[in-house]
Amino acid sequence: MESAIGVLVSQFKAYAGKDGSSDTLSRDEFQKLVKSELSNFVKNASDPAAIDQLMSSLDMDNDGELCFLEFWQLIGRLANKHGGFSQ
Amino acid sequence: MESAIGVLVSQFKAYAGKDGSSDTLSRDEFQKLVKSELSNFVKNASDPAAIDQLMSSLDMDNDGELCFLEFWQLIGRLANKHGGFSQ
Repeated sequence: MESAIGVLVSQFKAYAGKDGSSDTLSRDEFQKLVKSELSNFVKNASDPAAIDQLMSSLDMDNDGELCFLEFWQLIGRLANKHGGFSQ
Repeated sequence: MESAIGVLVSQFKAYAGKDGSSDTLSRDEFQKLVKSELSNFVKNASDPAAIDQLMSSLDMDNDGELCFLEFWQLIGRLANKHGGFSQ
């Protein structure tokens, strides 16, 4: 379980480090990550409008960047759905 | 990234399925999971009092069980710390 957590942290950092702040995902970095890494879990991963909408729903402080914990909420929702849990 | 998410879901289910509801962690299941799977990330993973405290802090609806999304908050905090992110 710790190694799987480590993978998620490393992959977040790999995308977050592409431009600007290396600890947050810009919209462009977020789109690349979703398209490359989450294409089975996120519907319309290639649709820019869907990415915009998803990003707004996660960016709680509306700063145009996703910090790790904001991103974590997304993968929690995806994992919850993937696991077939209720809620 | 999707496979790492799949690992976390499967491991949660493996522990959640040991007794009672197969979709939630009882206190006992939670203790087993933390001790076996998160012993490097959680301090005092073998201390029952520390486990009680951790469980209470996560069990938002106070039903004595952790659902997947409650558990997800814990691993998000651990991942955030492991990654050296602020907040």
